[in-house]
Amino acid sequence: MKRIGIFLLLAATTACFLASLRFSRASNVNGTSPIFGIEVPAGYRDWRLVSVAHEAGNNNDLRAILGNDAAIKAYREDRLPFPDGTVIARLAWGYLPSEENNKVFGRDQSFVAGPPINVQFMVKDSTKYAATGGWGFAQFTDGKPAGEALLRTCFACHVPAKSRDYVFTHYAP
Amino acid sequence: MKRIGIFLLLAATTACFLASLRFSRASNVNGTSPIFGIEVPAGYRDWRLVSVAHEAGNNNDLRAILGNDAAIKAYREDRLPFPDGTVIARLAWGYLPSEENNKVFGRDQSFVAGPPINVQFMVKDSTKYAATGGWGFAQFTDGKPAGEALLRTCFACHVPAKSRDYVFTHYAP
Repeated sequence: MKRIGIFLLLAATTACFLASLRFSRASNVNGTSPIFGIEVPAGYRDWRLVSVAHEAGNNNDLRAILGNDAAIKAYREDRLPFPDGTVIARLAWGYLPSEENNKVFGRDQSFVAGPPINVQFMVKDSTKYAATGGWGFAQFTDGKPAGEALLRTCFACHVPAKSRDYVFTHYAP
Repeated sequence: MKRIGIFLLLAATTACFLASLRFSRASNVNGTSPIFGIEVPAGYRDWRLVSVAHEAGNNNDLRAILGNDAAIKAYREDRLPFPDGTVIARLAWGYLPSEENNKVFGRDQSFVAGPPINVQFMVKDSTKYAATGGWGFAQFTDGKPAGEALLRTCFACHVPAKSRDYVFTHYAP
């Protein structure tokens, strides 16, 4: 009986260990962003467009800025600060020359969205994130959240946009 | 009595003339695109994002491609040809260096959407537009439809994308 007991205990421990491994892997791949505790918002790819941009240099990306309903409403009503519940998403893709388009235009001029680079989110909660202007920050690459070191740099970078509630992007009509 | 009758007739004619002037002005500003008879689709600015792009050269723009529900569904299901009812919108804005963003990045690298340039639409109706691959084309600048000459060039330009139902833009995940 003792042997069976020890066997069952070992089996249970192993199962728990494997389950925890699975959990930690899952939370790594589709996990919660550190510091601000932000998860990838459900359905964010369906949100409406705020604007588009191109970052050259090291970024070398094309990006779209999308907003949830609260964000779009505030943008369109020109209302600052953004209300709690606002979420702004920044999607970035590689900056890819399009040979197909260039043939049509007859010259090298066309750049399109290539493979996805990462997604960033700004989440407004003036109580929870009071220390960072009311905003929580997150970045996910292929579902995996960026680490603490990177996220600690977000707010400082956004301070120059303080007069627009720390948001750089203007609404593109 | 005759004088009053002539006066009333003149007044009515003048009113009709002024009304027709107002109408023709309105249909000029928010009118119907020639050849294909397309109006600006209601609520298109709320549609979901297909992708983003940058055309350099003479265009010098940043653009977003949006799709109505039928378009987004077909894109996500990788379904060709696009079903009747599909509408794809291409919004273009000036390609504007952002001094504010460049200061944050510490180098000249940031380009954002400037003033709106124009909006183009592709409308799928395989019966009505059978002569142009099933697609109707339209362009509006500040609500004013582009003329026949420009629209006659649209389909020929899209022929190289025939294998993708004449649509150049790929879906950006």
